Amino acid sequence: MKLFQTLKTCLASLCLSVLCLSAVAQDIKTVYHVNTGVETASAILGNVRNHLNADPQAKITVVTHGPGIDFLLEGAKDSKGREFSGMVGELSGKGVQFRVCNNTLTTRNVDPSKVVMEAKVVPSGVAEVARLQAKEGFVYLKP
Amino acid sequence: MKLFQTLKTCLASLCLSVLCLSAVAQDIKTVYHVNTGVETASAILGNVRNHLNADPQAKITVVTHGPGIDFLLEGAKDSKGREFSGMVGELSGKGVQFRVCNNTLTTRNVDPSKVVMEAKVVPSGVAEVARLQAKEGFVYLKP
Amino acid sequence: MKLFQTLKTCLASLCLSVLCLSAVAQDIKTVYHVNTGVETASAILGNVRNHLNADPQAKITVVTHGPGIDFLLEGAKDSKGREFSGMVGELSGKGVQFRVCNNTLTTRNVDPSKVVMEAKVVPSGVAEVARLQAKEGFVYLKP
Repeated sequence: MKLFQTLKTCLASLCLSVLCLSAVAQDIKTVYHVNTGVETASAILGNVRNHLNADPQAKITVVTHGPGIDFLLEGAKDSKGREFSGMVGELSGKGVQFRVCNNTLTTRNVDPSKVVMEAKVVPSGVAEVARLQAKEGFVYLKP
Repeated sequence: MKLFQTLKTCLASLCLSVLCLSAVAQDIKTVYHVNTGVETASAILGNVRNHLNADPQAKITVVTHGPGIDFLLEGAKDSKGREFSGMVGELSGKGVQFRVCNNTLTTRNVDPSKVVMEAKVVPSGVAEVARLQAKEGFVYLKP
Repeated sequence: MKLFQTLKTCLASLCLSVLCLSAVAQDIKTVYHVNTGVETASAILGNVRNHLNADPQAKITVVTHGPGIDFLLEGAKDSKGREFSGMVGELSGKGVQFRVCNNTLTTRNVDPSKVVMEAKVVPSGVAEVARLQAKEGFVYLKP
């Protein structure tokens, strides 16, 4: 019976290992780390779009803090007066996730209701960038 | 012999699994890569502080080179004339490590004795940023 | 049963050792992500050279997009009027690889024949930066 137990445990670990190894074959997950202002946002959203065109299976999460959150506030516009909401909505429809740092909202006294509905507020932008890499298998990109 | 082979395979997978799982449970280690000057240092140190507030178990190492080393030189001050030493000392007390690139010291002819005691001089800042990720399990963040 | 225990312990340590050694022994592969213009290129190439001096076994791939591609176009010069070709050739001779984003070439209407022979054109710079990390074991560095 003891041998049977050991075998059972071993087989369970085998399954786990296979799962770990299969992670290698999975879709690529990338965190875009954004802490620069609206003047850079159009180019960054263009990068995300190009990334998805080149790799449609890519999972992309855009984490923002500091001036980086600005393009995710209601009514935010680029230098040509066009609202970012169209591009954000389009990318969100393709599975791109957007996150906004609550420390930044607090420090700058911005009400969370000003954040567009496509974005989710997280306690800390920098801690989120680290967590996604260390715990969820994301690779990093600073656009 | 077949049973032995099976056991061997199972044990190998067990080791792998344990390693995989232990990776999940470990504290997150993050390298902050800094090569911008004193005008950016206050915001960067604020990022590190926010990171630690959000994740008190986080291990953070700040690797500096080029203009990035300036806030770690004796007597360095921010734009409002406040010395960085207080903030560096506070973060160091919380376990944050600071590293300064020796190539930069040599190129700029800065004597290593000018580096604050909380920081350690390493041969190359960029090689250190790569080493921490490849050999010590750090994730990357460029503030 | 004692023999079985001993075997188990030995195999576990063997697995651990093999995994540890394989992590320690591999050369470090680093992707340098460059999307800033020629005014930053000399310092970046200097970083790559310092990196190789500190770690001669390092594998370095420089992936460029946006204004980052400019120093890899024929005849590109730095602010002092010196061509980048010498430095690019020297680093290429030491095994450094250079990649240029085809999306950028298309958007800016630059003919691929303008790209220096040391560099390879890839479909998307950002997707390449992610792929090298997720699929080829590269660590990231934004100079």
